[in-house]
Amino acid sequence: MGTQRILSGMRPTGKLHLGHYTGALESWVEQQNLLDEKGARVYDTCFLIADYHNLTTSLDTSEIYSHTLDMLIDWLAAGIDPEKSPLFRQSQVKEHAELFLLFAMLITSSRLERNPTLKEQVRDLNMESLTYGHLGYPVLQSADILLYRANVVPVGEDQIPHVEITREIARKFNNHYPHPVNGEVFAEPAPKITKFSRLVGLDGKAKMSKSLGNTILLADGPDEIQKKMRTAVTDTQKLRKNDPGRPEVCTVYSYHSKFSSPEQLSALGSDCRAGSLGCVDCKTLCATNISQELAPLLERRRYYETRMDLVKNILFDGEIKAKLIASQTMQEVRAAMKLGELAPIHYHGQTEC
Amino acid sequence: MGTQRILSGMRPTGKLHLGHYTGALESWVEQQNLLDEKGARVYDTCFLIADYHNLTTSLDTSEIYSHTLDMLIDWLAAGIDPEKSPLFRQSQVKEHAELFLLFAMLITSSRLERNPTLKEQVRDLNMESLTYGHLGYPVLQSADILLYRANVVPVGEDQIPHVEITREIARKFNNHYPHPVNGEVFAEPAPKITKFSRLVGLDGKAKMSKSLGNTILLADGPDEIQKKMRTAVTDTQKLRKNDPGRPEVCTVYSYHSKFSSPEQLSALGSDCRAGSLGCVDCKTLCATNISQELAPLLERRRYYETRMDLVKNILFDGEIKAKLIASQTMQEVRAAMKLGELAPIHYHGQTEC
Repeated sequence: MGTQRILSGMRPTGKLHLGHYTGALESWVEQQNLLDEKGARVYDTCFLIADYHNLTTSLDTSEIYSHTLDMLIDWLAAGIDPEKSPLFRQSQVKEHAELFLLFAMLITSSRLERNPTLKEQVRDLNMESLTYGHLGYPVLQSADILLYRANVVPVGEDQIPHVEITREIARKFNNHYPHPVNGEVFAEPAPKITKFSRLVGLDGKAKMSKSLGNTILLADGPDEIQKKMRTAVTDTQKLRKNDPGRPEVCTVYSYHSKFSSPEQLSALGSDCRAGSLGCVDCKTLCATNISQELAPLLERRRYYETRMDLVKNILFDGEIKAKLIASQTMQEVRAAMKLGELAPIHYHGQTEC
Repeated sequence: MGTQRILSGMRPTGKLHLGHYTGALESWVEQQNLLDEKGARVYDTCFLIADYHNLTTSLDTSEIYSHTLDMLIDWLAAGIDPEKSPLFRQSQVKEHAELFLLFAMLITSSRLERNPTLKEQVRDLNMESLTYGHLGYPVLQSADILLYRANVVPVGEDQIPHVEITREIARKFNNHYPHPVNGEVFAEPAPKITKFSRLVGLDGKAKMSKSLGNTILLADGPDEIQKKMRTAVTDTQKLRKNDPGRPEVCTVYSYHSKFSSPEQLSALGSDCRAGSLGCVDCKTLCATNISQELAPLLERRRYYETRMDLVKNILFDGEIKAKLIASQTMQEVRAAMKLGELAPIHYHGQTEC
């Protein structure tokens, strides 16, 4: 094996915000572009639009396609390069469902019920109303990962139990169905514990979230960002411009620490504490710096927004690439399981949906 | 709608026995060939080889393909006509898995845990060892049925709860995802309660079963049937040839009631009771009558056994037909869910497994 393969994904929730950028997209682009000393790519990256996963928590699919395209444009704007990284929808690669069904036979229900991440997810729900598909979320995730033989899975601490389930399923499959030639069909993927830098919301809440309405979107222009920044919560004890402030409790300062230069940050911090910097000026500077960081994204976004056919074709191309990998994996799965021997399938393009 | 569609299926367990014949195959052939007064077929019949369902109770797939072919030959031998009824494997039509995944989101785990048929199935198992896939058995069955828009499902009493789950899922889907044109994507299938005539085993146990080794196979020739019949359990109180017997407790008499003429049966019954008929003669006649009934099956079996390429092609043809129906259904599902709009898929034949 040469390159290691990373699979990452997001649910299609529409236009992305700054939190998605600092929390995931930045590192995706970094992984995509990372070269070794010989100039070869370190990682082979695949990015999944997890539209079927959406159904585990909401059955409303009316906007799923427009949300997919909006998100895709943000991915492209952030620097994801479809030539390097196939971008594709789960719902368009039937093999996700196929491997999900096979993996469903390799894990007990009670093992899934003991999954701590699930327990957290359904804390607010009633366990009675948990759908069968939601219970099987980690099984579908295992299929997503192993279908592409991803061996590196970037996850936050809370997702480690899911990767453990994936490893268990891979082991169980390999034990039951050794490959006639290769021995093991699936390599056990390793979790790559990633400290996702979360961004607090404009309202000071722990994270930016569309449903809380406390976000700055990657699609927001400079004026919009200035306007939103004015609503950002600062140190509530700093009532007047000249009151000394506490940067460590200030939302705006937390943005500065991400989007301003170290010199600016240090000066801002001491000026705030000294009472010589008012929140209005501080916010204006913050919004300006964010806009500057996002300027190239905005430019690329405008490029793609006016070329929707290109965007759709990027998805088609990514899906063709994903299907090629997925069908090769499924060929090995079927060979190992002796399921489909001697069964060349005559697909008629026009009869496939 | 003109013709009603019936979907029936069996797990591929290898060569079939007389119990499969009287319990299912006979009525499948009858449904397939039933004509209305105008000479048109009453039912459009589809027959499914449920190889994925096998995995819910056994992960051993090493013989699944040979068992599939053996079973298929018995179907053909019994009179299933592949020109009238597509014959296909679940594992070769990816849409089964796809619809299973979507339906998984439409039913709660607790609803599935309350399924009385499941409770019976796992009585001997430990609930802890129930796989996630086994729990979802009725969801996969719902996908099997609704994928082909079957509106009639022949079931025994014990399967009624499964059809009820299928109806619930169809309703839930229709409510959430009304079709833009047709209103409802799925018609709720009606259970057709069928009294499957079970055949007791040669050992007198309640049913013939491969694992009990008490069967007469459809593939058994006259000599084999005579030999097996000699082992059949009769009235244990009839020790000598001339002892009066009780046909109502006799395994062989129960076979006569199925395979002998009414005249023969009536004579046999009174001769047995009168003590004028010995078990050896009675068994010889029974075996002869069964062999006579099976003679045309045996002849067709020999035809297919020597033409395995034809058998495999019958499967391929059936699978192409099944895929056509399945992909049309999934097109409507996707249209209703607005999942895959504007997504013509370019399948490359050679990349599909």
